[in-house]
Amino acid sequence: MRTGVVKGDGRGSLTLPIYNGLLQPVDGHRGLHPQGASVSKLRLEAFTDGVYAIVITLLILDIRIPDVRAEALGSALIQMLPQVFTYVLSFFVVALYWFSHHRIAQQIKQIDGTFVWLNMVWLLFVTIIPFPTALLGRYPLQPIPIAIYGADLILANVTGFVILAYMRRHPVLCFVIVDKSVLRRQIPAYAVTNGFYGLAIAFGWFLPWISYFLYALVLVGLAIRFTQIPNPLSQK
Amino acid sequence: MRTGVVKGDGRGSLTLPIYNGLLQPVDGHRGLHPQGASVSKLRLEAFTDGVYAIVITLLILDIRIPDVRAEALGSALIQMLPQVFTYVLSFFVVALYWFSHHRIAQQIKQIDGTFVWLNMVWLLFVTIIPFPTALLGRYPLQPIPIAIYGADLILANVTGFVILAYMRRHPVLCFVIVDKSVLRRQIPAYAVTNGFYGLAIAFGWFLPWISYFLYALVLVGLAIRFTQIPNPLSQK
Amino acid sequence: MRTGVVKGDGRGSLTLPIYNGLLQPVDGHRGLHPQGASVSKLRLEAFTDGVYAIVITLLILDIRIPDVRAEALGSALIQMLPQVFTYVLSFFVVALYWFSHHRIAQQIKQIDGTFVWLNMVWLLFVTIIPFPTALLGRYPLQPIPIAIYGADLILANVTGFVILAYMRRHPVLCFVIVDKSVLRRQIPAYAVTNGFYGLAIAFGWFLPWISYFLYALVLVGLAIRFTQIPNPLSQK
Amino acid sequence: MRTGVVKGDGRGSLTLPIYNGLLQPVDGHRGLHPQGASVSKLRLEAFTDGVYAIVITLLILDIRIPDVRAEALGSALIQMLPQVFTYVLSFFVVALYWFSHHRIAQQIKQIDGTFVWLNMVWLLFVTIIPFPTALLGRYPLQPIPIAIYGADLILANVTGFVILAYMRRHPVLCFVIVDKSVLRRQIPAYAVTNGFYGLAIAFGWFLPWISYFLYALVLVGLAIRFTQIPNPLSQK
Repeated sequence: MRTGVVKGDGRGSLTLPIYNGLLQPVDGHRGLHPQGASVSKLRLEAFTDGVYAIVITLLILDIRIPDVRAEALGSALIQMLPQVFTYVLSFFVVALYWFSHHRIAQQIKQIDGTFVWLNMVWLLFVTIIPFPTALLGRYPLQPIPIAIYGADLILANVTGFVILAYMRRHPVLCFVIVDKSVLRRQIPAYAVTNGFYGLAIAFGWFLPWISYFLYALVLVGLAIRFTQIPNPLSQK
Repeated sequence: MRTGVVKGDGRGSLTLPIYNGLLQPVDGHRGLHPQGASVSKLRLEAFTDGVYAIVITLLILDIRIPDVRAEALGSALIQMLPQVFTYVLSFFVVALYWFSHHRIAQQIKQIDGTFVWLNMVWLLFVTIIPFPTALLGRYPLQPIPIAIYGADLILANVTGFVILAYMRRHPVLCFVIVDKSVLRRQIPAYAVTNGFYGLAIAFGWFLPWISYFLYALVLVGLAIRFTQIPNPLSQK
Repeated sequence: MRTGVVKGDGRGSLTLPIYNGLLQPVDGHRGLHPQGASVSKLRLEAFTDGVYAIVITLLILDIRIPDVRAEALGSALIQMLPQVFTYVLSFFVVALYWFSHHRIAQQIKQIDGTFVWLNMVWLLFVTIIPFPTALLGRYPLQPIPIAIYGADLILANVTGFVILAYMRRHPVLCFVIVDKSVLRRQIPAYAVTNGFYGLAIAFGWFLPWISYFLYALVLVGLAIRFTQIPNPLSQK
Repeated sequence: MRTGVVKGDGRGSLTLPIYNGLLQPVDGHRGLHPQGASVSKLRLEAFTDGVYAIVITLLILDIRIPDVRAEALGSALIQMLPQVFTYVLSFFVVALYWFSHHRIAQQIKQIDGTFVWLNMVWLLFVTIIPFPTALLGRYPLQPIPIAIYGADLILANVTGFVILAYMRRHPVLCFVIVDKSVLRRQIPAYAVTNGFYGLAIAFGWFLPWISYFLYALVLVGLAIRFTQIPNPLSQK
């Protein structure tokens, strides 16, 4: 990757990558454009951030306002409280996935076509979230919506892990080498998360409130983990 | 935080932070990526701007076109005028929060995980705005929608103040130190705003038109304040 | 405005503005952050681009799919052709305003609070566009939707002109001085455009097809003008 | 186009274009702003990424949750499987167009007004995708929705090819010269893709399942091609 050099403070020069589309070298009309075959990380991030921002904002559209007589408005709104709970749950679930995406993206130096598609599969499972959320709002204590919700979250998690494994096999894409030990240290977090989601799915058939509790528990746990533990990928 | 130095105008060198994902140092595959554990301010801003842009644009979706005979269209549209008023009100309320977010973000040098979550809570209250707006459009003179609208705005304000308090305790995140005196100087603005919102909620039970007047008054007041008074955080 | 200097090619140094939030000077915790009181042009652009992108994409949501028996689908879709026409019209109207916004923004060096609010008023009239578009789709030959459509476009235009006038009075915000002669050279384009829109509104009561023709004519005229005539603001 | 020079690694200096709105030279109030007449590639990309992000996320809104008794939920969801298939199909079709747009944009150095309009026409056909997708979900085995879907994809493809042809005629916009041979090497990919789409449209009248298979086949084929073959425009 061709880089420009900005003269440093005397202790050495700082090499800046010339990101495609942002600070792009002018090669005239003769040569090959150096980033021609790679993919701009910046644009994929902008696209991804856009998708997350839209998903998290669209969730409110499924909370339809009640259409009742004015006197019945209060009780109609109270009946909507479970829907409000699933709204807040999904809001922070999407926020968590954005944060998780962000932590992985921070370790990415450049991307290739396969990475774009893996990222798209991840986004597919994220953009689906409004559907099981609306389903939970309409059928709050039924096992099937609880299972679809959990299955979607598990699939998104698995895709995230596949992306890590892909980074391990393609160190040229990363700032730090994601080796076997880095990957292995990630396994418990993924296993525990997906285990709890699996439990939540199972409880949907017996004690659906436990399912909600488990979904919220994973959310709070990961949210705290993200604020306290520095990015594990960078601990190498 | 590692920084690159671009030679200045002779009166000293200007140190530029190397933002993650934008001008990222190439450290090869050996070292630790310096921003590995921090969070990119730029991406959080992009995500936040996306959410604001979507919320402010989605508001129009709740103004449903009337389905009447052609001759009755004029009077049907006139009956929608209160809805148009709440639309315009909410449009500028969201615009104001974006501006307010922007003024705080300008003082932020880098962010951490807790800041991301505080920002998400703020965004939660912003993304909710279309719901009470639609509710006001459907039940314009009922106290409950007026109260939900005001309560959401108060919660968003309080979150903004909590963010300031967090910045005070974590000066490493800021360009300027937000000390006790800076925070204290902010209290009147927050107190007056929330006081007016509280009054508006109370008037909802007696004179709902006063509530609308108060919401609009706070909006106009803060809009003028933002154009005339420089960012108080930077007055230090 | 404080600027960093990147050493040039010997023929002089090139001064880069240090945009807030992008290449922000690290002033430590002592000093006043230099852009503390100004507003980041970049973030306003990102927000504005987001709003335009959403408005232009939301337009398709108002083209509801027909709910008829399979055999009647063809004729049901043919009946939707006027709606498709207004969709395409509004798509390019929004695209044109984005382009127009872009041409003005290119001349802006920095922004202040008033500029943010003027920009928000402009965006208000842009985000409203889906409403008269849906109204035209439902009542294609009625004068009132034609008038609301035209009135909204005129108001957006007038806001654009007010922004130019504001730039004239605040040269510190601009790369080039927008003086009286620059502003005056803009008047014919604005007058002709708004004149055609006014005519279209008037024809709505007599010959609504002429109204559509006039809206399309202005669109095509301005689109061609934008590709052929360089940005008049930069002709100074 | 005026450019700044950052001193290179000794083998020559690297010339960076000063993108408008990002690293904009401060010309004071005297001179002409150098990019005044051109259009910012960055902002068009941001706008385009926004549109793609919204289109890909809006697709889920057309998967409406069933409104049945709780016991009938499972079978109601199974009946929705064709709709889920068209959702996933359209999701990756939009992702593919984004990727394709991205590959072309990487070769673009600067843009002009005509390029903006060609890009807008391309976006028009992309933003339309949710309409035939919803139509296919409602009338999965009818020839007309299958034909509209295919026709929209063909039109988007043709626009992409027109953009390439425009780049060939305006080498000043590109990093590499897109000459006749580069364009000609692109023809087979476009012809095969559109041929398959045409076949899919034809089969809609006889064996609609074949149509779906063909749409999916083209998608998978192009997705693999994009990961394996480097950007052909940069092979020159």
